[in-house]
Amino acid sequence: MSGYWMNEINTDGYRVQWKINNILHTETTDYQQLSIVDTVEWGKALVLDGALQVSEKDEFIYNEMITHIVMHSHPQPEKILIIGGGDGGALREVVKHKDVKAVDMVEIDGRVIENCKKYLPSIACAFDDPRLNLYLEDGIKFVANSKEKYDVVIIDSSDPVGPAVQLYSKGFYENVFKVLASDGMMVAQSESPIFYQDIFVSVFDSLSTIFAQTYVYLATVPTYVSGPWSFTIGSKKYSPLKIIDDRETINGLKYYNAGIHKGAFNLPQYVKELLG
Amino acid sequence: MSGYWMNEINTDGYRVQWKINNILHTETTDYQQLSIVDTVEWGKALVLDGALQVSEKDEFIYNEMITHIVMHSHPQPEKILIIGGGDGGALREVVKHKDVKAVDMVEIDGRVIENCKKYLPSIACAFDDPRLNLYLEDGIKFVANSKEKYDVVIIDSSDPVGPAVQLYSKGFYENVFKVLASDGMMVAQSESPIFYQDIFVSVFDSLSTIFAQTYVYLATVPTYVSGPWSFTIGSKKYSPLKIIDDRETINGLKYYNAGIHKGAFNLPQYVKELLG
Repeated sequence: MSGYWMNEINTDGYRVQWKINNILHTETTDYQQLSIVDTVEWGKALVLDGALQVSEKDEFIYNEMITHIVMHSHPQPEKILIIGGGDGGALREVVKHKDVKAVDMVEIDGRVIENCKKYLPSIACAFDDPRLNLYLEDGIKFVANSKEKYDVVIIDSSDPVGPAVQLYSKGFYENVFKVLASDGMMVAQSESPIFYQDIFVSVFDSLSTIFAQTYVYLATVPTYVSGPWSFTIGSKKYSPLKIIDDRETINGLKYYNAGIHKGAFNLPQYVKELLG
Repeated sequence: MSGYWMNEINTDGYRVQWKINNILHTETTDYQQLSIVDTVEWGKALVLDGALQVSEKDEFIYNEMITHIVMHSHPQPEKILIIGGGDGGALREVVKHKDVKAVDMVEIDGRVIENCKKYLPSIACAFDDPRLNLYLEDGIKFVANSKEKYDVVIIDSSDPVGPAVQLYSKGFYENVFKVLASDGMMVAQSESPIFYQDIFVSVFDSLSTIFAQTYVYLATVPTYVSGPWSFTIGSKKYSPLKIIDDRETINGLKYYNAGIHKGAFNLPQYVKELLG
């Protein structure tokens, strides 16, 4: 029991503790409490408002899964919008796709990006990509005001507390629909179907009223405790159940593959029943 | 932070805490430290040697997944052997299959059964099934000495510490092979591929040298922390990738369905690479 431990309080009855070697940095930004900690189990990690956001050891799972399912389902994903994702992990995965010509990324808190570039360079490694246009502003306002049309929108938000609350609202998703091309598709991380059941169901319900097609898939991310983690897709035309096969496969991925793409949509009975 | 918390120490750098309303029972059996706790988050739970074994709220995931994959892959599972599984959850699921004519269950620690019948009756609810023959003895010795031939063997062991260590040995699996019919199949819970990577790989390697066909599938059980949980199948004849469709579907399951059966075998890249 010796040493330093970081507590993450997940519910009134459940919390996890990660042993830490050191707190590398901590600051209060304009939006949240931000820390970079060096954990014994998961390498260095970004913590926002007391919740672990991304760790070096398991970030590949979340970042590959929020990105490659939609990117392998759209036949020509050229113009991409990432909302949130300040750690740069989704960006790193998006730019692996050669079809991509432009990535707009909107992160409200520039301090997240700066700290991840400094302390988590294996994740925040694609901010120099020439296809990137970075906007340090509110994603809600960005999609409300934008006249662009994107092929794919990726909503990589933190938990629905603090600055991210509005990123789970129906009004926001309606504006995402508006900035998507007529054959565009979006994906949002949609929380744990166990610990955040209400949010999970409300994201699905909102997208179902807006998009022609709505899909949920799951992945298991060790540092996102409580079991499965959900992602929800809204699509105007293409089904994500069909992988575009005539595109060069990306090598070196550690989670995603064609079997995972197909299998991730097969939901446990209790999750299906939540979605009616 | 008030109230009573149970600590589960998972690795040197990771532990979880469940808030408890009460410790309902605790004793030292001939084999292990046994407690029944009433948790805030997961209902009542069995704890052995400090590790949560089964909770009322999420036990359906593990128990359905260790049982129904093999039971729906074998065309006529009549004679079943369960090794371990003293909480009765796997037994409860096995006896839902009408093909079953006899279940031999071998549990080394009768106190586990007695306490689960008393405190976790929704799990330990099938011990009165007339098809059951219960043996309170060592599963290792049972399979070494048995002359029976089973259609399906389910190895529902606790973690590889204390009385369960030998249940992960190649010699034990060779005896399981011996007690299987010529078209029989076995499944073993094979731990977390993240926190128990060595065990996970060694179970697969052992079964691969013994059985004609070996398969791994995953499920996510919230109270088994660290992410995905693995199960490994050794089969003499039938592939578990093929579901027997001409059998009455079992109603009322909360995790297993045909999509899960198929999708669970699609492994993430990092798990595939562990298995070579």
